[in-house]
Amino acid sequence: MCAATVPGIRLEFRSSLFVALWICTAVFAFDFAIKLWLRFSSQQGLDYLLSPQGLIDALAVVPIPIAFLLGVPAETAWLLASLWILKLTANVPGLSLLWRVIALESRALASVFVIFAIVLLLAAVALHVLERANQPEKFGSLPLSLWWAVTTLTTTGYGDAVPKTFLGRLIAGGVMICGLGLFGLWAGILATGFSAEYRRRDFARTWDLVTRVPFFRNLDPAAIVELARMLRRLDVAEKTVVIRRGRPGDCMYFMASGEVEVRIESGPVRLGPGSFFGEMALLEGGPRTATVVTTIPSTLLILDVSDFHAFAAHHPDLAQAVEAEARRRRIGPANGKAGPPDQAAAH
Amino acid sequence: MCAATVPGIRLEFRSSLFVALWICTAVFAFDFAIKLWLRFSSQQGLDYLLSPQGLIDALAVVPIPIAFLLGVPAETAWLLASLWILKLTANVPGLSLLWRVIALESRALASVFVIFAIVLLLAAVALHVLERANQPEKFGSLPLSLWWAVTTLTTTGYGDAVPKTFLGRLIAGGVMICGLGLFGLWAGILATGFSAEYRRRDFARTWDLVTRVPFFRNLDPAAIVELARMLRRLDVAEKTVVIRRGRPGDCMYFMASGEVEVRIESGPVRLGPGSFFGEMALLEGGPRTATVVTTIPSTLLILDVSDFHAFAAHHPDLAQAVEAEARRRRIGPANGKAGPPDQAAAH
Amino acid sequence: MCAATVPGIRLEFRSSLFVALWICTAVFAFDFAIKLWLRFSSQQGLDYLLSPQGLIDALAVVPIPIAFLLGVPAETAWLLASLWILKLTANVPGLSLLWRVIALESRALASVFVIFAIVLLLAAVALHVLERANQPEKFGSLPLSLWWAVTTLTTTGYGDAVPKTFLGRLIAGGVMICGLGLFGLWAGILATGFSAEYRRRDFARTWDLVTRVPFFRNLDPAAIVELARMLRRLDVAEKTVVIRRGRPGDCMYFMASGEVEVRIESGPVRLGPGSFFGEMALLEGGPRTATVVTTIPSTLLILDVSDFHAFAAHHPDLAQAVEAEARRRRIGPANGKAGPPDQAAAH
Amino acid sequence: MCAATVPGIRLEFRSSLFVALWICTAVFAFDFAIKLWLRFSSQQGLDYLLSPQGLIDALAVVPIPIAFLLGVPAETAWLLASLWILKLTANVPGLSLLWRVIALESRALASVFVIFAIVLLLAAVALHVLERANQPEKFGSLPLSLWWAVTTLTTTGYGDAVPKTFLGRLIAGGVMICGLGLFGLWAGILATGFSAEYRRRDFARTWDLVTRVPFFRNLDPAAIVELARMLRRLDVAEKTVVIRRGRPGDCMYFMASGEVEVRIESGPVRLGPGSFFGEMALLEGGPRTATVVTTIPSTLLILDVSDFHAFAAHHPDLAQAVEAEARRRRIGPANGKAGPPDQAAAH
Repeated sequence: MCAATVPGIRLEFRSSLFVALWICTAVFAFDFAIKLWLRFSSQQGLDYLLSPQGLIDALAVVPIPIAFLLGVPAETAWLLASLWILKLTANVPGLSLLWRVIALESRALASVFVIFAIVLLLAAVALHVLERANQPEKFGSLPLSLWWAVTTLTTTGYGDAVPKTFLGRLIAGGVMICGLGLFGLWAGILATGFSAEYRRRDFARTWDLVTRVPFFRNLDPAAIVELARMLRRLDVAEKTVVIRRGRPGDCMYFMASGEVEVRIESGPVRLGPGSFFGEMALLEGGPRTATVVTTIPSTLLILDVSDFHAFAAHHPDLAQAVEAEARRRRIGPANGKAGPPDQAAAH
Repeated sequence: MCAATVPGIRLEFRSSLFVALWICTAVFAFDFAIKLWLRFSSQQGLDYLLSPQGLIDALAVVPIPIAFLLGVPAETAWLLASLWILKLTANVPGLSLLWRVIALESRALASVFVIFAIVLLLAAVALHVLERANQPEKFGSLPLSLWWAVTTLTTTGYGDAVPKTFLGRLIAGGVMICGLGLFGLWAGILATGFSAEYRRRDFARTWDLVTRVPFFRNLDPAAIVELARMLRRLDVAEKTVVIRRGRPGDCMYFMASGEVEVRIESGPVRLGPGSFFGEMALLEGGPRTATVVTTIPSTLLILDVSDFHAFAAHHPDLAQAVEAEARRRRIGPANGKAGPPDQAAAH
Repeated sequence: MCAATVPGIRLEFRSSLFVALWICTAVFAFDFAIKLWLRFSSQQGLDYLLSPQGLIDALAVVPIPIAFLLGVPAETAWLLASLWILKLTANVPGLSLLWRVIALESRALASVFVIFAIVLLLAAVALHVLERANQPEKFGSLPLSLWWAVTTLTTTGYGDAVPKTFLGRLIAGGVMICGLGLFGLWAGILATGFSAEYRRRDFARTWDLVTRVPFFRNLDPAAIVELARMLRRLDVAEKTVVIRRGRPGDCMYFMASGEVEVRIESGPVRLGPGSFFGEMALLEGGPRTATVVTTIPSTLLILDVSDFHAFAAHHPDLAQAVEAEARRRRIGPANGKAGPPDQAAAH
Repeated sequence: MCAATVPGIRLEFRSSLFVALWICTAVFAFDFAIKLWLRFSSQQGLDYLLSPQGLIDALAVVPIPIAFLLGVPAETAWLLASLWILKLTANVPGLSLLWRVIALESRALASVFVIFAIVLLLAAVALHVLERANQPEKFGSLPLSLWWAVTTLTTTGYGDAVPKTFLGRLIAGGVMICGLGLFGLWAGILATGFSAEYRRRDFARTWDLVTRVPFFRNLDPAAIVELARMLRRLDVAEKTVVIRRGRPGDCMYFMASGEVEVRIESGPVRLGPGSFFGEMALLEGGPRTATVVTTIPSTLLILDVSDFHAFAAHHPDLAQAVEAEARRRRIGPANGKAGPPDQAAAH
């Protein structure tokens, strides 16, 4: 749909394209009207209109007719359809995170930005003074010089304006190295903050899932917190192979929701939420002994072998419970041949 | 004000611009004179002049008249006004941090710089040997070759000098990959150091605020330290929405200073320093039940849901106190309908 | 072998090259046929064909004859030989890691990608509107403008399309800075995830080795976990100098497998798996007193001096055992002269 | 000295430059000869020659005369003097660290490198197929295409070869984004490994210093390890201002070696190794009450306010000792007026 704007410039498909675009606009307008009516009827209309979501919905609908009314040519007016891409932001969980990171780290980011601005201006002035005699069309005014400076400081380096004097090149080299440093700071602060924030949000989700698995209920709270930090959530689509027989095993899985099928020799076994599988590889090492496939979209919690050993060392009860279960399985369904499969218990 | 230097090149607005610039200079000169007089009267004048702040103040005032006296044309002289941007550094908390990081990590940074210099020189020499026959105007001397090397090693890539021989391009490819590696080291060291240092300073600030919140006073010192590491400070302007009703709740707030208004059905409730709000979402999950807006600029301490659970597991007393308060509120103002709002206690 | 594709374009060596390429293809085809036959005979043929490894093997063999059958010229057909490089992926331990990181961090990466797409499209539309009048051949259509945007946002900066208007350059500067920020996020998320995942896998390997060293067996499980986190695995080729006499010593070594030769004055001593060496430098400081060289490819576990002190502070038994061994050695083989060498015990 | 090679191309200063270069060569040759003679007399000559240091010393001396003997023109021969810069590596503590990081992380780095190579080759082949018709001089052979690919993948972007077809540009955009990702991985692995390794080495140094400060001696080993992790070493030149009166105080200092002068109202006080200062700001908050200047080059250990509180919470004895000392000072030299200065105890 959004991709439709790209060939919107071509002349051949004009009519069909315009129809498609009008339909899209109509759909968005209808959606916007419904939302507006619902909110106003519950007396939250203004709240909605001023919220980011409301603004994006309005921006997707309102500007296009206005542009047509103002007599803007159709090709240009339809470029406003590119604002539709903002609708994607509603589905991006990371965007609100990004705002929070920026809010929390605003002072650090502002510091780097000020240093950036200082280096930018001083470099532009220096190059303007040094190069304006030789290249007036490229460094003749401060805005031109600033353009060079921003191109260089971000290490983009278009090459449309390049210093020619010896001193100018020396300063340019310094600016590039500064650019690397500043960029490193900027990236480091953003990335550190973002990943920290992301881990917190992830923990909150994992926590919800952990409290739902009956197997963990008789652990003490400190152990649950420790475990929730170790477990990593994995959303798997249906009919996906989670474990493949013969591969090295480096983790076990707890099921938070969904269903999996364990394909063992004595026929497939289905496991539902609350069960676990893949513990053999952790207890005994060696390759996986069965293939496990999801039957419906499932949410799994992964416990790595390293975390399993670390956790088991401090809380031997979990390890014992897993081992007891594993022993029960080995004796139970397996018929003495080969390695008994990674089968799971339905508690 | 600083932006005024940019169109300072244009000819049209000369007179009005020059007036504005002279006024700025006069203001800075007056400010500098006052400061100087104050410090000299308290016998710290020389200290001030030699401090970074004093140097910046002096640089903002002194060079411009000197330039005019030396007969430098007005356009060039006013470029010295770009030094005014250095005044911004006084307000940047991160700059002193940056100096400290550079001081602490100086050995690591110097190591990377030396490797950078070695790769730079050897690459320049190699390319000079390989390319001087074909492109004497671009690689004919070592300084020209160094210019190419610095452009390439920082991955700026102007494209004004490009190796043409097969061997030269092979080396150039290696230099680019080295550049990525060195840049990564450089950025990683700076960013790691900066964010570690920033966290320390942040902790020091949070610590001050935490000791002021009466709710935390009866915790033991180790718990307060642990808590101060988890809490994150958030400065909020007045009339900002902190919590929006209906949004998912992932943290609770303690007030260090300022005032907020909790908009619940039974009318707004105001909360001052020392109180907390937003704890419902942590205890029961589910969306926020009230909108909270600041009335004056406030400083809040955020406790994430993940940190709350982790802390509560090791120190059940805080969780119990928060829960007791929450239970009190639920029975108190709420009239049985729906979810009672996230209201806060004024201790 | 893969490098043979590069001069595959040159005309001189045609015949000999083609022979070499045909031989390679034949080898791969033979290898593929054998594998296929083996798997089908064990009724896993389809599984193999659909696995990534099977697909890569098939891609290395099947397309080339098909291309020749379709009448594609030889030079072009042989370009398909570049698919052989995919065979390298089988030996890359990091590739499966990378997939797992991407799976686990998919939401965060997708968020950044959506922001990337939004900035890309909006910047392209803005520049298209601003620059199409001046540079129709470079910004005249949205695809052209998108090409500029992707070049700038990734800070590649070819310089083939450069904005000329003031507003266009302002936006371009903003796009570059956005590019740095987005890149930082992207790199940070990937790198953090990758290194965390790598550490887990490393731990799992170290764990296996640690449990095989008899010296660690009487430690309690929590201590073993702590130790396995500290130890770092180092695979050393044969005849490599591990410790050089006179160098400062900052770590000790435990042998997981292989053999080393300790070159001391009273003749070389050979040490096998389970022994340790280099502990003198940790206990007494000072330079290494002997050179240690591997005789066969060996796997060593490194314990840093910092980790040794940290571990010894919490678990004095390990330190005492190491010290007892060191004392035994000092009295034992050494003949009173100089410092007795870093010799190891074969338990 | 090394800079002398740069104008070595200029013709004017030929004779004087050549003399200077010959002198340098002679000095290095003499140094090399002495070293060689000393080592051979102690029967370690071959060891030295094969060690990196020996190789670098040999490279600085041997190639230049050989080049002259082979009849290479003087300008070219002297370019070999650029190898002198390798001598700098002897003084770079980080270089041996870097080697160790590369050795330890070799598998991760190799993985990224293989992915890099695969993307490089496939992109080059794709662009070669797509663009060779339009731009035979830029994408006409695989080496040319590889040159474009390496330029793009490292985001250098010279702009000498730019794809023109729609599909080629699409792939190029993908290659740039891959480049960012790969670069991020590469940089992240190197930077993480380097900073971890650096911290270990730093700990080892700090540990040595900590054990020398008498004040820490009666702490238990676990506490010393914890403290050594918090303390950061700072080497200060003589006559440097460590603390400036009136500045906010965020850390205290322990002296490992050297001497400082505390400038208080009742006259300056000198403090030697083993003493501490700056503790007032930690215990009471508020600005520094005295200026502290080093008199000789000193090594200080910094304890941040955040670490101080964290440590004091778990080990109240250190805090009590510092407080007792501070109380003693307050009553002692101060004469009741204002805040008594940050004075230190000479144990």
